[in-house]
Amino acid sequence: MVGPLRPKFVLFGSSIVQLSYTNGGWGAYLTTVYSRQADIVLRGYSGWNSKRALAIVDQVFPQDAVVQPDLVITYFGGNDAMEYNPSGTSPHVPLEEYIENMRKIALHLKGLSDKTRLIFLSCPPLNEEQYISAHGNEMIRTNEASERYSEALLKLCKEIGVKAIDLFNSIRRKDNWENISFTDGIHLSAEGSSVVAEEIEKVLKQAEWEPSLNSDSMPTEFP
Amino acid sequence: MVGPLRPKFVLFGSSIVQLSYTNGGWGAYLTTVYSRQADIVLRGYSGWNSKRALAIVDQVFPQDAVVQPDLVITYFGGNDAMEYNPSGTSPHVPLEEYIENMRKIALHLKGLSDKTRLIFLSCPPLNEEQYISAHGNEMIRTNEASERYSEALLKLCKEIGVKAIDLFNSIRRKDNWENISFTDGIHLSAEGSSVVAEEIEKVLKQAEWEPSLNSDSMPTEFP
Repeated sequence: MVGPLRPKFVLFGSSIVQLSYTNGGWGAYLTTVYSRQADIVLRGYSGWNSKRALAIVDQVFPQDAVVQPDLVITYFGGNDAMEYNPSGTSPHVPLEEYIENMRKIALHLKGLSDKTRLIFLSCPPLNEEQYISAHGNEMIRTNEASERYSEALLKLCKEIGVKAIDLFNSIRRKDNWENISFTDGIHLSAEGSSVVAEEIEKVLKQAEWEPSLNSDSMPTEFP
Repeated sequence: MVGPLRPKFVLFGSSIVQLSYTNGGWGAYLTTVYSRQADIVLRGYSGWNSKRALAIVDQVFPQDAVVQPDLVITYFGGNDAMEYNPSGTSPHVPLEEYIENMRKIALHLKGLSDKTRLIFLSCPPLNEEQYISAHGNEMIRTNEASERYSEALLKLCKEIGVKAIDLFNSIRRKDNWENISFTDGIHLSAEGSSVVAEEIEKVLKQAEWEPSLNSDSMPTEFP
């Protein structure tokens, strides 16, 4: 809408996306890094699972939009990986259905335009004790489930040729990760967010994608 | 570009805008507050004065853009208020010329569409000693000049009916403002940014503008 036209990067996902501009978040970081080059558009929906995301993906990303995104960074899975709860209040989605939903979301996003690139983020780990003390233990989240959902997403991404970031293992690579990565056991602290930002930058550089940080196709506006 | 269409708020200005997504900045804060309602678009150009801004305002905000912004928050002035420097490296712009530039920028922005609202931010104060220790004293910035440029902009805004935020006095209202508001004497710390965010929210509420936080015209996306 504002010219000259810049590449558009969309951040699409649940709370780890919606909250990515708080606590020195990775969304705010990307906005700063690309401040003279690309527009970062936030499409974060706290609490959502892949089922809800699939239901609206064609409204958030209409096939016939005049301008399509250059990059979509997508994260759903943490809420899907929660345990099923007989009262029906859990956003749990069974693993196979989660993967099919993510496959369909990838297909829709890839179909938006030839230039549209994708990065999927897999489920991060959590600090189970910190989570329970912040949120109670009615809704159950475990590292065991997060790891399964993360692994399955990485496998899907390999199969369909989508760049993926292994958040489960990236975050756990830091010393004392349990205690420095989260604000409430699940949502990312500045430390946790810095891992996401670093991994995204790595993928953008490794992929030699246009748009990339040093690409001629993404000049700095009014240098 | 991404649907459903949301209101667009553009942040247009020099480094206090470009850096507004760092250090718990006010840009990142607005993006979080409006995360399900509006798109915040960053158009920050570090080091620029009103002269350079005026020269490109019709490229950044083309008159014939299909989608025009709902709100433009504009800040230039701190670099204009720097002292003239015989070597010609200072971005100094004389006060009268600064005001004429800002008047023309306001006119252009107001003319984009009937719905386009404006907020102008006036020159913030600085910590002169901290500035010199961080940047040296080749380029001179003073509170005396910042106050003059701030006052003149507020007067212009009153004259032409543009909402204005008196940053010079708002920031100085906090106890110990000299020591908590800046990272390097001029750029805003988290504390300094929180004043900007609060003042913007006040204007949006007082003005009962559409878009406003509680307006029916700006629904939460997929509530």
